[in-house]
Amino acid sequence: MEKLYEGKAKIVYRTEDPDKYLIYFKDEATAFDATKRSHVEGKGIINNTISSILFQLLWEKGIKNHYIQKVSDREMLVWRAERFDVEVVVRNVAAGSITKRLGIPEGTVFPSPVVEFFYKNDQLRDPLICEDHILLLNLLPKEDIGKVKEMALEVNRVLSLFFEEHGIRLVDFKLEFGRLPDGSVGVIDEISPDTCRLWDMRTGEKLDKDRFRFDLGDLIEGYRRVLEKLHRG
Amino acid sequence: MEKLYEGKAKIVYRTEDPDKYLIYFKDEATAFDATKRSHVEGKGIINNTISSILFQLLWEKGIKNHYIQKVSDREMLVWRAERFDVEVVVRNVAAGSITKRLGIPEGTVFPSPVVEFFYKNDQLRDPLICEDHILLLNLLPKEDIGKVKEMALEVNRVLSLFFEEHGIRLVDFKLEFGRLPDGSVGVIDEISPDTCRLWDMRTGEKLDKDRFRFDLGDLIEGYRRVLEKLHRG
Repeated sequence: MEKLYEGKAKIVYRTEDPDKYLIYFKDEATAFDATKRSHVEGKGIINNTISSILFQLLWEKGIKNHYIQKVSDREMLVWRAERFDVEVVVRNVAAGSITKRLGIPEGTVFPSPVVEFFYKNDQLRDPLICEDHILLLNLLPKEDIGKVKEMALEVNRVLSLFFEEHGIRLVDFKLEFGRLPDGSVGVIDEISPDTCRLWDMRTGEKLDKDRFRFDLGDLIEGYRRVLEKLHRG
Repeated sequence: MEKLYEGKAKIVYRTEDPDKYLIYFKDEATAFDATKRSHVEGKGIINNTISSILFQLLWEKGIKNHYIQKVSDREMLVWRAERFDVEVVVRNVAAGSITKRLGIPEGTVFPSPVVEFFYKNDQLRDPLICEDHILLLNLLPKEDIGKVKEMALEVNRVLSLFFEEHGIRLVDFKLEFGRLPDGSVGVIDEISPDTCRLWDMRTGEKLDKDRFRFDLGDLIEGYRRVLEKLHRG
């Protein structure tokens, strides 16, 4: 298969069907603009599994996304999408960059979810952008900015409830969006402990990539606990 | 008179009338979060004069602001205002922080003006913020965000035209807003070469605070040229 794109954690391949791509989940972990890197055996398998569960859930709730099916341990078949060069972050609880940028203590629960847009650009280190920047850089058509924000908030409602039912607090997460073959806007990329902050609701323990970023404990152990909790549900 | 507030370039005093304040323009120049500082003889006089001209112009065009009258070389009488802790930047041409943040070459003319909000907070170094942050931090009531943005764009239309008529390109500028005694939202603070990027339209020369920031030439000489051009108008 022709390799279309290789990112830090995934490879995207073309398939025989021009409207379908195959995503391969790698075992690489990176953080801080890839200045910190590691090989984490089994991460790709867990992230493919968790992403598949969450994308299926979004379809069940009527939220368009690129997921078609999980085809192997590390492979997911998805709809082709033209990616928007925007990362959409939804925050329910203060953690990560917002704590430093705005001086808000980690763990502060927001009265309503905060949506942020970042410009997906490695060279510029993914800067925060606002609506006028999105239009200036032509990252999204004007009519889709509100749509993407509304979809991100809807994903947040669905995932927050789902994780809560399984004993996990969805602190924040990053989504990517693109235009699917039918012309509609959908969630793409992955939804996993690489892209979500997930805290054990009972113990407060961090089960996500912050374990790797800040050496809080074995990465794969946290990811496995997320998957176990979702299966136990 | 009781000193209410002393900033980097101005002092605000109470007056006998509780609804009126007096602003005193100092000769201090600061840049890069006040890590670069200098005394620039006469800067306060020029900034008070230019600000007075521009605030009067805004009133003539129906744009509410705190200006009442220039009462001396360095003093301006203004309406009392409850300041919003937000700095509003309007950009017509790429210069300054946006060139680095978004990788846009200096001098790029934007197809339409770009409005940015910053959190006025020295300790956090005035970070860029978006609408959700403004609401989260309670910096502005929701119904006033759009109003402030629209006013900033209207100020841009008025000032761009005015400067252009006097041979100066208004590249970008920073506004502050507050609630005036009658409850309405108005432009406050100052509008001067300290807060605007102003380029000579014929020569391209920078006539504003960038002269000080980047040692491009005598600061006061640039400010004087702005004032001369406005008077010659």
